[in-house]
Amino acid sequence: MEERGQALVERLRQEYLDALLVTSLPNVRYLTGFSGTNAILLVTATQRWLFTDFRYADQAAAEAGANAHVVIEATSLWRGLWETLRTLRSIHAVGFESAHLVHRDFERLLKDGTAWNWRPFVDLVERLREKKDPGELDNIREAARVAQAALAHTLPMVRPGMTELQVAGILEHALRDHGSEEHPFTTIVASGERTALPHARAGSRAIAHGDLLLLDFGATVSGYCSDVTRTVVVGQADDRQREVHAAVHAANEAARARVRSGMTGKEADAIARGVLERYGLSEAFGHGLGHGIGLEVHEGPRLSRMSEQVLPEGAVVTIEPGAYLSGWGGIRIEDNVRLSDAGAELLTDLPRQLIELT
Amino acid sequence: MEERGQALVERLRQEYLDALLVTSLPNVRYLTGFSGTNAILLVTATQRWLFTDFRYADQAAAEAGANAHVVIEATSLWRGLWETLRTLRSIHAVGFESAHLVHRDFERLLKDGTAWNWRPFVDLVERLREKKDPGELDNIREAARVAQAALAHTLPMVRPGMTELQVAGILEHALRDHGSEEHPFTTIVASGERTALPHARAGSRAIAHGDLLLLDFGATVSGYCSDVTRTVVVGQADDRQREVHAAVHAANEAARARVRSGMTGKEADAIARGVLERYGLSEAFGHGLGHGIGLEVHEGPRLSRMSEQVLPEGAVVTIEPGAYLSGWGGIRIEDNVRLSDAGAELLTDLPRQLIELT
Repeated sequence: MEERGQALVERLRQEYLDALLVTSLPNVRYLTGFSGTNAILLVTATQRWLFTDFRYADQAAAEAGANAHVVIEATSLWRGLWETLRTLRSIHAVGFESAHLVHRDFERLLKDGTAWNWRPFVDLVERLREKKDPGELDNIREAARVAQAALAHTLPMVRPGMTELQVAGILEHALRDHGSEEHPFTTIVASGERTALPHARAGSRAIAHGDLLLLDFGATVSGYCSDVTRTVVVGQADDRQREVHAAVHAANEAARARVRSGMTGKEADAIARGVLERYGLSEAFGHGLGHGIGLEVHEGPRLSRMSEQVLPEGAVVTIEPGAYLSGWGGIRIEDNVRLSDAGAELLTDLPRQLIELT
Repeated sequence: MEERGQALVERLRQEYLDALLVTSLPNVRYLTGFSGTNAILLVTATQRWLFTDFRYADQAAAEAGANAHVVIEATSLWRGLWETLRTLRSIHAVGFESAHLVHRDFERLLKDGTAWNWRPFVDLVERLREKKDPGELDNIREAARVAQAALAHTLPMVRPGMTELQVAGILEHALRDHGSEEHPFTTIVASGERTALPHARAGSRAIAHGDLLLLDFGATVSGYCSDVTRTVVVGQADDRQREVHAAVHAANEAARARVRSGMTGKEADAIARGVLERYGLSEAFGHGLGHGIGLEVHEGPRLSRMSEQVLPEGAVVTIEPGAYLSGWGGIRIEDNVRLSDAGAELLTDLPRQLIELT
């Protein structure tokens, strides 16, 4: 926490900011440890104030008391912010999070904050979060282990005739039993043609013999997420299922072997996309290769056709090539890796060959 | 959907708006049926345009095709918005959702939208959503039924020594088996002293004999949520547990008997608060009596000390008095009701007397 604070203060200095107003809850958690759902944070070069409400009085003191002055507000967190800011000398330029401040709250700055010079920033704290420290990495590693254990428990229990929702129930139950404190996103269990929808939720469809079954899910450990996908066949695979799976598998393998820090998000994406192209499936790969994971399940850096950003050493990202064919189905194989100059260190180690549940 | 559209057009007329830009996803879903996670919606007196991305091409057409022109954008949804707006004549005043537009996107209006007169609104669509139509009510009723069935399945399986996470796993599994398509919020399973934290998540604490056990959870059916809480004793209750439970039970009962549409949120809240006061527990009731439920698990109207809003006929709200004593524990009993002039119609019908799991 100390190191994160220093890195942020250095960023404020570079941007000629006297203070930063943090309104993104994951950013608040990253900088203070506070995990509640209502808070704003003020950071200067030497101090921090965490404003939250009475529901979180005990929790804020326990989680963030060592890292910030905790201020409990009865009515509006903003009241405390203005009071605190008015007591501070030589605070003129204050940054705010342009992507995490709604217009209604921005108007407060214009109305009550005229004494300060407000400057919008995007991704200022998020960029610091991209490189994971050893404690963060341990949490993600454990979240990946929990996700794997849950899948290993679930697959042998899948039977034709079960609904997607029933499979989601088994999987989520196992995630809890293995210690996941929260489902980091809505569990995807899609079967048959529905696997062609990259963002299908589990539904009431009954799984048929011979169906593709795609499971995309994660675990949360001390706030840190894993995000894993496997696609299996319920029964024996047919030729087309084998072919498309082999292509996605090859794309996953190539990306894991060659993605490293120092390349751009676009270059990383191109590795998998090139493989799928050779299989005639580049059109079927409609999303990016991956994204950072951490306190949020989607964070920086992005591995996509659009991203010119250089991937930093220590980033933890998904590698998730897929191929989706409308009316037929889709296959995605998603792993979590830590990036360094030496390559991608695997955090997930589930089988990647085509599993047939027979 | 047709009726909702007409009600909105009437509101635009009242506010002298030629169009409304909708950026809240639940509001987009309410007005079009689209349930994806990336969309903006433009509404005029006669037409609607839903802008989303390629991932949702099929889904948007299926869900919203009858209610809006669906526009699939490859790069930015805003590109489509500007193109569409430029083709429209006599659109001058355009409303936007001040509580659902981040500063970064607000800057787009200032930069690319100079041809229009942008006017911020709060709760414009949300107010329409407060009064539920029969189809919405059916979904919430079913979501309440699913939540009840899941709790009835779970309680007999709780044993001292289980962790809160394990109980959450059983409960969520049952929610899925009974058809819940999504967990509408992070399941709260708190035991012992942790029940005093109104927003405790499930954790690794092992449940001990004699503990209070608080379960706060819900189901989702066709996008609509239920939100239910019961607090039980794992073993035989002691006198203090009985006392506090009786007080909260009485507050719940009084509120269910007397809350109705036409009173203010503050008056509704005062009914339960008055009962707890007589038991010397008004200080221990640190949150409001309830909130609306629907496409979101927290929506209007609010039943709280601060709310001067008159509760509308047809609103569906929670009734959830509680008492929290730091270092001892907390008890909450939460039901879901539909409001009318005649009173509060119960949608949840779980037992409210103190359950002892022996």
